[in-house]
Amino acid sequence: MENKKELALKKHEEWNGKLETTAKAHVNTREDLAIAYTPGVAEPCKVIAEDPEAAYKYTIKSNTIAVISDGSAVLGLGNIGALAAMPVMEGKAVLFKEFGGVNAVPICLDTQDTEEIIKTIVNIAPAFGGINLEDISAPRCFEIETRLKELLDIPVFHDDQHGTAVVVLAGIINALKVTGKKKEECRIVMNGAGSAGIAITKLLLRYGFKHITICDSKGIISKTLPNLTPVKQEIAEVTNLEHKTGNLADALVGTDIFIGVSAPGVVTEEMVASMNKDAIIFALSNPVPEIMPDLAKSAGARVIGTGRSDFPNQVNNVVAFPGIFKGALEGRARQITEEMKIAAAETIAGIISDDELNEDNILPQPFDPRVAEEVSKAIKKLI
Amino acid sequence: MENKKELALKKHEEWNGKLETTAKAHVNTREDLAIAYTPGVAEPCKVIAEDPEAAYKYTIKSNTIAVISDGSAVLGLGNIGALAAMPVMEGKAVLFKEFGGVNAVPICLDTQDTEEIIKTIVNIAPAFGGINLEDISAPRCFEIETRLKELLDIPVFHDDQHGTAVVVLAGIINALKVTGKKKEECRIVMNGAGSAGIAITKLLLRYGFKHITICDSKGIISKTLPNLTPVKQEIAEVTNLEHKTGNLADALVGTDIFIGVSAPGVVTEEMVASMNKDAIIFALSNPVPEIMPDLAKSAGARVIGTGRSDFPNQVNNVVAFPGIFKGALEGRARQITEEMKIAAAETIAGIISDDELNEDNILPQPFDPRVAEEVSKAIKKLI
Repeated sequence: MENKKELALKKHEEWNGKLETTAKAHVNTREDLAIAYTPGVAEPCKVIAEDPEAAYKYTIKSNTIAVISDGSAVLGLGNIGALAAMPVMEGKAVLFKEFGGVNAVPICLDTQDTEEIIKTIVNIAPAFGGINLEDISAPRCFEIETRLKELLDIPVFHDDQHGTAVVVLAGIINALKVTGKKKEECRIVMNGAGSAGIAITKLLLRYGFKHITICDSKGIISKTLPNLTPVKQEIAEVTNLEHKTGNLADALVGTDIFIGVSAPGVVTEEMVASMNKDAIIFALSNPVPEIMPDLAKSAGARVIGTGRSDFPNQVNNVVAFPGIFKGALEGRARQITEEMKIAAAETIAGIISDDELNEDNILPQPFDPRVAEEVSKAIKKLI
Repeated sequence: MENKKELALKKHEEWNGKLETTAKAHVNTREDLAIAYTPGVAEPCKVIAEDPEAAYKYTIKSNTIAVISDGSAVLGLGNIGALAAMPVMEGKAVLFKEFGGVNAVPICLDTQDTEEIIKTIVNIAPAFGGINLEDISAPRCFEIETRLKELLDIPVFHDDQHGTAVVVLAGIINALKVTGKKKEECRIVMNGAGSAGIAITKLLLRYGFKHITICDSKGIISKTLPNLTPVKQEIAEVTNLEHKTGNLADALVGTDIFIGVSAPGVVTEEMVASMNKDAIIFALSNPVPEIMPDLAKSAGARVIGTGRSDFPNQVNNVVAFPGIFKGALEGRARQITEEMKIAAAETIAGIISDDELNEDNILPQPFDPRVAEEVSKAIKKLI
């Protein structure tokens, strides 16, 4: 492990920046210069001044997004600030290009004020065809994303919320096939009520799941509880319809699916054993999951997913976001809708054929070249 | 000409964006992913969180700048707005990379409010090692640049001002050699008191020229005039020491150098004929200069520069900005100082050897590979 950390540092120093800007328009002659720059460049400028849509025809807006963070909730590292978030945003930008062919510019913001973040992103938006928000802490991320979607005419997508939700839904769709469970009947416990937990819950409800109970660090969330934040209040209206109270262990008894976006080791074997037969466990705390896969298995779980690449069924956003933005940009979507997210999840799930599908193979590999291509096609069909 | 315009549009449509982001860190395997992204990426993040300077070691900040405009003064097109300015900013970004090896991201701002522009640029600055301002109208560009230099610890450079000033000074240095004129004795008329005119005047004064008279569209600027803008008031204190009044024709009588950043055709043959022997004319209005070179020549001018590539002595910022930022980034300059600008001008002038130097060859070609390399070395010596 120590060696891997040293290697990561060494490689980052060698790269000295994991991406670069590269000219598509080369200027090797005076004539090249006169076309790509003055005086020729005035022509597309004049056309765009008359017709703003022409920016998609003549500029990088058509295929370039910004990957934007304020550094407030970076990986498991927390609020490390703008500069320290750069390696993650650069990495994300690399993945957008490598997997989806989407140009991506990492931008880290020297402010964590909601209004300033919104204003700044609106101000820089003309250069971009989409905005991928990243590692912005809850509850600010909800307000920032909602407001930006109202203010901008390009797709805005907070990947920690929606990318995660899409991949979890994809995994759940295939886990249902493996276990024969029905979405209308499944009882789900969602542990964690931050950005990912709320987004996953909303997408699962939208997809047709009926019975979801959310826990946070204080236990089961119910609309009868006092002092809920507005976001928790809103989600409490449509979850825990039986008004259960108690802790996570109480919540899990007699349920089918556990999804954790919470903390290492908070789920015990006893808790898993109290769940229904063929339980599905998505223990996404990373790198240490809510329960280790072997323990969950021995306690009776059937399908287990984690955030880790060294166990089966890695739940990794990289199977979602490159294809989603590729499709949104190519189809010139103004928004990434709930229908598109569900279509993306179904497409990701469908990449695993019935022959390949089993309890240890519910999600495609990030390196499967079909993934971004198929996801982008599914998105474009809905534009 | 019509064909060239059509070709420029056609090429811009083919490019559909003149640059792209390209991965330096490729992710072809699970191990690659674990180093460039999670979990390995956490290591440089943690180091930068402890020591912000490490961002220069591990991220694109070390070699990436933003090319930022509000679209308020684009080429000769005027205030065409953010979106329509994109082709120019992309072109500039291409030139930064092609000539200086500097990664550059075009950003066009959806605001023309001075305070909002400043705030927005401060907020996005962590991702960048330098800020190149471009095509922002006077007088806002002065305030924006001055304030950003105070607020940021990375170089901020308004190329329309300082890039132009550097190349004009370089050309003047060589024109003096050709004509045998002495800077202390030369009388200069500067026509145009916008961003470029003011910046050129300041740099020439700093370099050691003593006698400069500035004209704007109303005639000679003198500190005795009422209602001068603050910027003109300030420059009037150090120019036109003889308190001349009158129009451009009055100003030019008995002078050695004319520099125009003004309007097509405002200089007549009679005006040139009224200047001293071996007059130097920099007629930079583009594409139509203040006076056409052949007319200036026949009226007695000795050295004539324009902004055009189809006449000798093209005054083109591209010989300055790539090398200036290359040097500033490599040497980690916090500011681009007046000394650096003068060193850049002297270096650009010096690239033309005494053997090569003549009245039709005072400035190097943009495609001369020595230019950016030598300029960057000169900048680094001063850091």
